[in-house]
Amino acid sequence: MKAPSSRRSRSSSELRVIPLPLSGEILPGDSIADKLLAVLRRRRLRLQSGDILVVKHKVVSKAEGRLVDLATILPSEESVAWAKQYALDPRVIELALRESRTVIRRKNGVLITETHHGFLCANSGIDVSNVDGGRHAVLLPENPDRSAANLRRDVKKRTGLSIPVIITDSFGRPWREGLAEFAIGIAGIRPLRDDRGRRDPHGYRLKASVEAVADELACAAGLVCGKLERTPACVIRGFRYDSGAGGVRELLRPAASDLFR
Amino acid sequence: MKAPSSRRSRSSSELRVIPLPLSGEILPGDSIADKLLAVLRRRRLRLQSGDILVVKHKVVSKAEGRLVDLATILPSEESVAWAKQYALDPRVIELALRESRTVIRRKNGVLITETHHGFLCANSGIDVSNVDGGRHAVLLPENPDRSAANLRRDVKKRTGLSIPVIITDSFGRPWREGLAEFAIGIAGIRPLRDDRGRRDPHGYRLKASVEAVADELACAAGLVCGKLERTPACVIRGFRYDSGAGGVRELLRPAASDLFR
Repeated sequence: MKAPSSRRSRSSSELRVIPLPLSGEILPGDSIADKLLAVLRRRRLRLQSGDILVVKHKVVSKAEGRLVDLATILPSEESVAWAKQYALDPRVIELALRESRTVIRRKNGVLITETHHGFLCANSGIDVSNVDGGRHAVLLPENPDRSAANLRRDVKKRTGLSIPVIITDSFGRPWREGLAEFAIGIAGIRPLRDDRGRRDPHGYRLKASVEAVADELACAAGLVCGKLERTPACVIRGFRYDSGAGGVRELLRPAASDLFR
Repeated sequence: MKAPSSRRSRSSSELRVIPLPLSGEILPGDSIADKLLAVLRRRRLRLQSGDILVVKHKVVSKAEGRLVDLATILPSEESVAWAKQYALDPRVIELALRESRTVIRRKNGVLITETHHGFLCANSGIDVSNVDGGRHAVLLPENPDRSAANLRRDVKKRTGLSIPVIITDSFGRPWREGLAEFAIGIAGIRPLRDDRGRRDPHGYRLKASVEAVADELACAAGLVCGKLERTPACVIRGFRYDSGAGGVRELLRPAASDLFR
């Protein structure tokens, strides 16, 4: 199963972003692959070789049972004091600290951490949900690359197709207002497209052209996916990706070479 | 000409990203609207109400004559010394400093500035091109929002359609490897989609859901556009945007509330 190689040609073909809305709730133990393939069948669509599957992490986290009942969290005095200043839930702050490797900034009611995975984001990526009538925190998957690889494997078992999988979350960004979607788990596709050393139509050697295609795919997916639409996933068709093992690590700049933390 | 309002319904429809490859070179004074509409005609496509036009800034800059012959730039001693350390072109560094309001970081051969427009990016967004057999610097448009509004107006004159326009550039990002595409000029569409106060399917009030849709549209466009493809523009069809005047300022976090500069 050879993926379309971008090395051969990047002549532009149309890209399609096909939403996969789910009707029901995702519960721990559910198969995301089964759910998404059922949506495709209902819509009389089929996965094709070359498709990319993009899934918001929240459904993956829920299927993996990454839920914490906030009633079970006893925040530290420090978390209580800081949360109180900004009318935040101290249990969420406490949990965010537990899910973090480092606190990057804690200011003006904003807590930016580096998660155990190495993501820099607000509150360690914790969402709050009203699942089961109680308030639960939804954590990021323990290992989003593994989650992506598992979903890829499950889809292959059921369809015979090797489809790259990208798991995403919405993060805030330095310098820019608004959230955007980022890749947090990647399987079957190279996250970066490296055009260094290639030449543009003028023969000028491209210098800094390493493009974060996995993040751009996440953003394209973000345009059709969302909480309000109950659309946690989509298929992206027509993108000439470079196949590879994947792995989000390639997208994470090491602290030592990062000028902004 | 009412744009599809996302307030009515966000039920997910398919998104299409249609590349508009140009065959020739863009010269100062060229009409980008004419060029792009000609591509559409050749491909037997028509703009439709609801479409969004996304254009990489480089062709806009060229059409606006934002080219500087590098031979005319006399770099300061400081620029020469710093560029030499990292084998960079001191004239590009000099020009980047002239195009900047503030130097944000200058380290390890990386110069991050805040441009006169307020963008934080490497080398003030200056590209180098081999136009006319000589080495030229391509500057960002003087006022990319105005460039977007002009293109929107030109398209309306020729087609009768009010099509939002987003002009983009590839920027590096703190914390993440690889470049991604960002909106730098916006007309006819609200850059942020503000879902604060709306409720998710569980009735949970969405807290931080301000989404930078203009940047996500830029990224979706980045997947089909590129230097190697000679595809500087695309049409995005099927996105339920909120119409508005536009303006990139909404996407630029004021320095005072930015924790990372």
